[in-house]
Amino acid sequence: MSAMEAVTAALGGRLAFGGDYNPEQWPEEVQEQDVVLMQEAGVNLVSVGIFSWALLEPEPGRYELDWLDRVVERLHAAGIAVDLATGTASPPPWFLQQHPDAALVDAQGVRRSFGSRQAYCPSAPAYRDAAARLADVVARRYAEHPGVVMWHLNNEYGCHNWHCFCPGSGSAFRAWLRQRYADLAALNDAWGTAFWSQRYTDWDQVEPPREVSYNSFANPGQQLDWWRFSSDELRACLQAEIDAVSAVSDKPLTTNFMGFFKPLDYRAWVRDLDPERYLVSNDHYLLAEDPGSAQQLAMTADLLRSLAGQRPWLLMEHSTSAVNWQPRNLAKRPGEMRRNSLQHVARGADGALFFQWRASRAGAEKFHSGMVPHAGTSSRLWRDVVQLGADLRALAPVAGTRTAAAKVALVFDWPSWWAAELDSHPSVDVDPLATARRWHRLCWERNVGVDVVGVGDELSAYAVVVLPVQYLLTDDAASRLAAYVRGGGTLVVTYFSGIVDEHDHVRLGGYPGALADLLGVRVEEFHPLAEGATVSLTGLGEAAVWSELAEAADAETISSYSTGPCAGSPAVTRRSVDGGTAWYVGTELSEEGLDRLGSRILDEAGVRPVLDGLPAGVEAVRRVGEAGSFLFVLNHADVAVAVPVAGTDLLTGRSGKHEVPPGGAVVLREDD
Amino acid sequence: MSAMEAVTAALGGRLAFGGDYNPEQWPEEVQEQDVVLMQEAGVNLVSVGIFSWALLEPEPGRYELDWLDRVVERLHAAGIAVDLATGTASPPPWFLQQHPDAALVDAQGVRRSFGSRQAYCPSAPAYRDAAARLADVVARRYAEHPGVVMWHLNNEYGCHNWHCFCPGSGSAFRAWLRQRYADLAALNDAWGTAFWSQRYTDWDQVEPPREVSYNSFANPGQQLDWWRFSSDELRACLQAEIDAVSAVSDKPLTTNFMGFFKPLDYRAWVRDLDPERYLVSNDHYLLAEDPGSAQQLAMTADLLRSLAGQRPWLLMEHSTSAVNWQPRNLAKRPGEMRRNSLQHVARGADGALFFQWRASRAGAEKFHSGMVPHAGTSSRLWRDVVQLGADLRALAPVAGTRTAAAKVALVFDWPSWWAAELDSHPSVDVDPLATARRWHRLCWERNVGVDVVGVGDELSAYAVVVLPVQYLLTDDAASRLAAYVRGGGTLVVTYFSGIVDEHDHVRLGGYPGALADLLGVRVEEFHPLAEGATVSLTGLGEAAVWSELAEAADAETISSYSTGPCAGSPAVTRRSVDGGTAWYVGTELSEEGLDRLGSRILDEAGVRPVLDGLPAGVEAVRRVGEAGSFLFVLNHADVAVAVPVAGTDLLTGRSGKHEVPPGGAVVLREDD
Amino acid sequence: MSAMEAVTAALGGRLAFGGDYNPEQWPEEVQEQDVVLMQEAGVNLVSVGIFSWALLEPEPGRYELDWLDRVVERLHAAGIAVDLATGTASPPPWFLQQHPDAALVDAQGVRRSFGSRQAYCPSAPAYRDAAARLADVVARRYAEHPGVVMWHLNNEYGCHNWHCFCPGSGSAFRAWLRQRYADLAALNDAWGTAFWSQRYTDWDQVEPPREVSYNSFANPGQQLDWWRFSSDELRACLQAEIDAVSAVSDKPLTTNFMGFFKPLDYRAWVRDLDPERYLVSNDHYLLAEDPGSAQQLAMTADLLRSLAGQRPWLLMEHSTSAVNWQPRNLAKRPGEMRRNSLQHVARGADGALFFQWRASRAGAEKFHSGMVPHAGTSSRLWRDVVQLGADLRALAPVAGTRTAAAKVALVFDWPSWWAAELDSHPSVDVDPLATARRWHRLCWERNVGVDVVGVGDELSAYAVVVLPVQYLLTDDAASRLAAYVRGGGTLVVTYFSGIVDEHDHVRLGGYPGALADLLGVRVEEFHPLAEGATVSLTGLGEAAVWSELAEAADAETISSYSTGPCAGSPAVTRRSVDGGTAWYVGTELSEEGLDRLGSRILDEAGVRPVLDGLPAGVEAVRRVGEAGSFLFVLNHADVAVAVPVAGTDLLTGRSGKHEVPPGGAVVLREDD
Repeated sequence: MSAMEAVTAALGGRLAFGGDYNPEQWPEEVQEQDVVLMQEAGVNLVSVGIFSWALLEPEPGRYELDWLDRVVERLHAAGIAVDLATGTASPPPWFLQQHPDAALVDAQGVRRSFGSRQAYCPSAPAYRDAAARLADVVARRYAEHPGVVMWHLNNEYGCHNWHCFCPGSGSAFRAWLRQRYADLAALNDAWGTAFWSQRYTDWDQVEPPREVSYNSFANPGQQLDWWRFSSDELRACLQAEIDAVSAVSDKPLTTNFMGFFKPLDYRAWVRDLDPERYLVSNDHYLLAEDPGSAQQLAMTADLLRSLAGQRPWLLMEHSTSAVNWQPRNLAKRPGEMRRNSLQHVARGADGALFFQWRASRAGAEKFHSGMVPHAGTSSRLWRDVVQLGADLRALAPVAGTRTAAAKVALVFDWPSWWAAELDSHPSVDVDPLATARRWHRLCWERNVGVDVVGVGDELSAYAVVVLPVQYLLTDDAASRLAAYVRGGGTLVVTYFSGIVDEHDHVRLGGYPGALADLLGVRVEEFHPLAEGATVSLTGLGEAAVWSELAEAADAETISSYSTGPCAGSPAVTRRSVDGGTAWYVGTELSEEGLDRLGSRILDEAGVRPVLDGLPAGVEAVRRVGEAGSFLFVLNHADVAVAVPVAGTDLLTGRSGKHEVPPGGAVVLREDD
Repeated sequence: MSAMEAVTAALGGRLAFGGDYNPEQWPEEVQEQDVVLMQEAGVNLVSVGIFSWALLEPEPGRYELDWLDRVVERLHAAGIAVDLATGTASPPPWFLQQHPDAALVDAQGVRRSFGSRQAYCPSAPAYRDAAARLADVVARRYAEHPGVVMWHLNNEYGCHNWHCFCPGSGSAFRAWLRQRYADLAALNDAWGTAFWSQRYTDWDQVEPPREVSYNSFANPGQQLDWWRFSSDELRACLQAEIDAVSAVSDKPLTTNFMGFFKPLDYRAWVRDLDPERYLVSNDHYLLAEDPGSAQQLAMTADLLRSLAGQRPWLLMEHSTSAVNWQPRNLAKRPGEMRRNSLQHVARGADGALFFQWRASRAGAEKFHSGMVPHAGTSSRLWRDVVQLGADLRALAPVAGTRTAAAKVALVFDWPSWWAAELDSHPSVDVDPLATARRWHRLCWERNVGVDVVGVGDELSAYAVVVLPVQYLLTDDAASRLAAYVRGGGTLVVTYFSGIVDEHDHVRLGGYPGALADLLGVRVEEFHPLAEGATVSLTGLGEAAVWSELAEAADAETISSYSTGPCAGSPAVTRRSVDGGTAWYVGTELSEEGLDRLGSRILDEAGVRPVLDGLPAGVEAVRRVGEAGSFLFVLNHADVAVAVPVAGTDLLTGRSGKHEVPPGGAVVLREDD
Repeated sequence: MSAMEAVTAALGGRLAFGGDYNPEQWPEEVQEQDVVLMQEAGVNLVSVGIFSWALLEPEPGRYELDWLDRVVERLHAAGIAVDLATGTASPPPWFLQQHPDAALVDAQGVRRSFGSRQAYCPSAPAYRDAAARLADVVARRYAEHPGVVMWHLNNEYGCHNWHCFCPGSGSAFRAWLRQRYADLAALNDAWGTAFWSQRYTDWDQVEPPREVSYNSFANPGQQLDWWRFSSDELRACLQAEIDAVSAVSDKPLTTNFMGFFKPLDYRAWVRDLDPERYLVSNDHYLLAEDPGSAQQLAMTADLLRSLAGQRPWLLMEHSTSAVNWQPRNLAKRPGEMRRNSLQHVARGADGALFFQWRASRAGAEKFHSGMVPHAGTSSRLWRDVVQLGADLRALAPVAGTRTAAAKVALVFDWPSWWAAELDSHPSVDVDPLATARRWHRLCWERNVGVDVVGVGDELSAYAVVVLPVQYLLTDDAASRLAAYVRGGGTLVVTYFSGIVDEHDHVRLGGYPGALADLLGVRVEEFHPLAEGATVSLTGLGEAAVWSELAEAADAETISSYSTGPCAGSPAVTRRSVDGGTAWYVGTELSEEGLDRLGSRILDEAGVRPVLDGLPAGVEAVRRVGEAGSFLFVLNHADVAVAVPVAGTDLLTGRSGKHEVPPGGAVVLREDD
């Protein structure tokens, strides 16, 4: 039984519903009212104590947990389970007063001040020690408490302290590098220090990539390893808490991820975690001014499901309405919170929690929406929260099922992302995540399921694998992709993929060095385009960002450049390899071009939508399991839509054929 | 007799005319010519010694004032009065050499270097001591000199050193906080430190809001108190100079304000100043690329008059033409300097002075215009200066009169401004000063007089009181506003007003917590708009920036949203309360919408313009007093305009009916 | 014989062809292949060891040159000459480890980290000593080696460390100032420290212009001297290397300039260099998104030729295709590299070298194109390189000739550039280089030769001298310009010229103080225009950026402002002086206006193009010498063009009349 399933079991088989609960911000009488309202809303799980360090340990080594006992007891008495935090997310003022060297320092050497949160260096021994001690104290106290069903380790690791450049981080970086390279010669080779007279002759000469000479670039090998190191350091912080808590408890553990958060290689993070002990959870917030946020949400959920190994995962935080940290924090439209929640559930979440239960009166996040708004319960928002609680209760049968297997895999790996976005590259317009998102949208608009996978994941079950700007590719990964194609798969590779090896060394002899043979294409020279410029393609409209001078000696040219510096050169090619197919897309297609090409690729590979016949803006996802098959139909559009299949809508209990109102949703237990 | 009246008396009853005079930049023969030219131009008051510290005290404790004696004597002999500076505005190089800890330090910890001006920490004891000593030396030397008619304390406090984050400032901040909160529990409550694990357990843990963790926000309570503290620290610098000078002289005192200068709460600054001793003065510079600068000038003058308690005040600095510190320093058009000067006088200034007498040859401000330009006296600019001198001489009867009482008050308070513009808010497009300016423009375009008042000022005499984005409202202020309406007044409140209390704690139960009952409106949720987006209103056109989900249970809905996320919700409401009226405007109206609504509000409240029948761009302001009633008509437009009332034009001596030429002005002593 | 001629002689009379060669980045077998490919391409000169310090001196004082021996020997054996670097461009990691005080520090006090290149303070004695020692060791080892034909001192001085603000730089600045001013009173006068209380009373109070108080401006005299000092400091670094190498070798010396590189006053740099020993060389890179880059290249070459005293100079670096450091590194179009190379040669370069021989696999510049691309020799780029080698071999007769004497001089001086772009000026839109470039383009489009000269250069041979925004003008320079006009020359002066003296003190009495009498114009006041605004001129269309209120008492008004704040005032004037003519252009003309006015000025002065009858986009330049007259015709346009004169094309050997294909070139040995 996976960790999420264990939690679901503790919740009586229901989907989780609730949010971050910070009772310390409120007087006792409000806390008592909280529990009543939680029951009214159907809340069954709350995260407690995330930012309580200052209360739990008011002075170094003196712990005060009695107040927390009362909170946990009160919740437990009301039947509300607790996801109990280790409380280590943000050290209190006394910590930095005692340990000034544990402060966060930026690339310019500015020692960042207390006053916000996460004001610590992730490599600081003082921080790690203090956090492990607190985790131990909390876990020990509540290990056997029946109200505590899981542990919430730290919170949003790295959100505000992803890289620290202090001297201590320098030492940690050197230790990490010694581990990685064993000897300096290997580091010198990996970093290419023969260039620009950078050869190191003493480990102590190696420093973090702090601000360098004016208008210049730090060594890219050093930068890439710095991203790796920094992700690993925060992973080590997590491991220390896992170890501390595991020593006294075997309840499920989690820490909340943040989706496509560049600094943390979550794929590497989950690699050694036991899915029976560790539960993958995520915090997801819309960018309110992004008109494509529903697709962005879907893609993130498709990543999380992959990180969770297709097992159910948990949406730890999202917002009932506006957040507080964007330039313009647009509130959600009627129905939007509900559809957001159901999108996550459809794509594998076994619950939908919020930050936070009650909107704060004070502090930096007071204008972040909560389940109980400033206006109180006489508000549309509260009524929507209560409705959502009822909806999720009705969806209990879905718990434990899995999102139907996708036939399309979109490869997205952190080390390649880091490397692709280093400075001193052909074009600043190259954006791996944006390109990935465009290929995901192609599928999302068609209701074609996608897994966002790692290049090292098992690919053989997918009909189509897309590699969007996978700039860095190891030899092993390249071999696996070749094997996938030879095994009958359809591989789609975009420009600026397979360019360098794991040390960011260019693969010579013609781009994309790692894949040229497989694709049957050899690129001589990149021709990135000027800002805003486009070139024409034969049959595929306009393209932007990138073009290149290539030969397709061993592939069919599907489209060529008809204008621009590479006129006449192939832009899109297709090579049949044994039973498989290898596509190369050497530029950034327009919406129309991508639509046309993508349709052909999906069609040829036999990829079908979850449901045919839905108009634009209507999302359909299926979860299946022993309990049956459940079809989520979410209407993001402005007009009602008829669902072409019959079933019983779990949300209303009605059976037969259904029409989904504008902005609405049905979740059908499919009859056939 | 107010301090300004005392100065006017010393000037023989004439309006002040002159400017900053920095003879130390010029050789003796130029200084001698200066006095001749001043006489030619009718200069009667100059400010001397503002940046003379380095000359007055060439080494610590050694004072050299003989050169200043000669300057003062020469001016006095020529009948030109002196506004003598304490000389403390900018410490000389030796000061920072001796006191490196007194340097200004920014939020990143960068110790700002000497080389400009005001390179000091306002909390540094070394600075305060040295400044007080110099003020004492200067005041003692000239206390009895008949040529010195007033004291110019320091200069533009805080212009380049508004916040200092050095360790010494940290200590001063803690001392200020102890004074304010007495105990840490009160501070923890005010700052909401239960949030994000910020509870302080030792005063020494509290620091200025220096740069915090990446992409995060410092505690808003800490930030708001930091603005308060920083304003108070500079006020304390002023007080030290007041004390030093008052110990030896009872001549009028001033320091030059800078209008809507965000860091300094001038309303708090003047609170404890004796109007018989202290004279309110201001420096005002146009933003040359702002097409609405004439209205901006008027609004600033309306603020200054309010700060001066409706007594005459002094325009200490403006420019004859271009300044040097904007990206493009457009010169003034013919007639513009004169109209600017007359606008200030019309709105209560009893004089118009300039920075500076003679344009510098060298230094950072050499391209700032002066009364004597680089081109010398054979120039249009010099001729205009001479003409202005004659004009102001002709306006002597106006001195001592007061601008006619306004019927409209516009509330604008610094603490609310500070709080409203803290980070982590619903929308970066919310701009209290911009909204205030739009409501002021509504009146200015109609020649309706406005006072820019504090929310704590006496309001009962006003027919209309407008609260533009008064985000922070104390309980007391809310009560006073309610009393104002109950007393028959018309109150207009815009969105994002009355949201928080003095500690930036949200008032719960529905926005605007402090005013919901008075307005008869309850707002459930803010719906700020996307960048550049608009929504439609019934009857009032388009609106921008903001919308909200509200109920108007106890008010008449004047206009509702007809599009956007809040379609159907009230946008503008009106509630009759006893004899008064409370309006609520929940969005940012278009020009047309504001024009339509504003006209109705002013009409209903019986507010009339100073003069009817003037075309657009013609400004009319009246000053009245024992000497009579004086009507200023300033033609900012391109066509001549007939003045619909008769009188004697003080500027020309002509009586009867008048036509004001394009760009011109008349000042009528009204016959009836 | 000049130094370049000596190198040419060592190359057997051929133009130099090759590039930076960094064998240390590659294994031995690649190095062996390199020499074979160099021979295939006709490479005859490579620069070796520029970034080899870390290898040459792996630990302080221990030198390892054996590997370099092998490289030099291998090249020599293959007939490829070596431009041997002193290797001092970038100190290795151990250097900063040993000498942390020698690190580069920015204006905010951030000590810039190792990890890029040039991470040193140019004033640091530790750096200067170590560099001189290394230069000595290298020069001593290869002084007699026949394969080494010249010395490459350092590399692109100042590219990433143009200003250092560390305490040591402060000391050096003070020493430099003492040298310049002898006593503090002179410095106080020059810097105008009477302004803003800045009078220095002790040399130790004087600091570099580090970050000053918020929103303010450092003293302009201090800033201007800081630019002078910083250029001088790097010049002193060069001199130390010249001295070290000259002590043991009399082979030609060079360091590679960077064209219009603002921080270094190259005109001052070459002043004391012996042209028989020192060879002027330059690195030139196109800004790929600049549509006018061919003209920009030409202007830079016209500057270099002037710096070289019209003697042949060397193009030390350009790129075969894309670079790596721009936002979008567009590759070159077919033929573009060749035309770029020939443009440089036509304008005086006796060779065209590249950075770098082989594109790197790793490091910050791996995406910078090379002569051998990542794709290898099976590539269009390699074929183009081989072709260029053949072309340059065919152009051997051109070596040693000189570009035909230009009749137009464009004055461009660094101190005026520095001063004109200081802060606190009338308009940020004033851009001396942009204005200079527009006047150069006027000539370039007409194939009129231009020299980019210093104001102190001999001007009498020019028919027209243009002074674009020469803000700072010494008395001596003004006198020389007056003499030039009186001698029959045509002088064209633009706005914001002649405004200040060498200390940045405004010349009083009417602008442009230094030239008003000569021009017959007196400007009273500047009226810079708002962003994007234009004004109309009589007869010359629209103008932008600038206007002014002027009188032309002693000049003919050619065009006046017809709109805007200066309507009616003269905008363009012409004064006949003895046999000469003095033009004043008081605004920034439109393309059309400049075309119309410029044509008239050139026609009246009798300036003729190199060749008549060429269509737009075709560049013609002539080199002449004992070997004959050589006409370069470079077709930047898309259509073939017939050359109106006959001759033998050196590139093809064909004689008679020629047609130049789109993108192509001919170099005619002219028959007549």
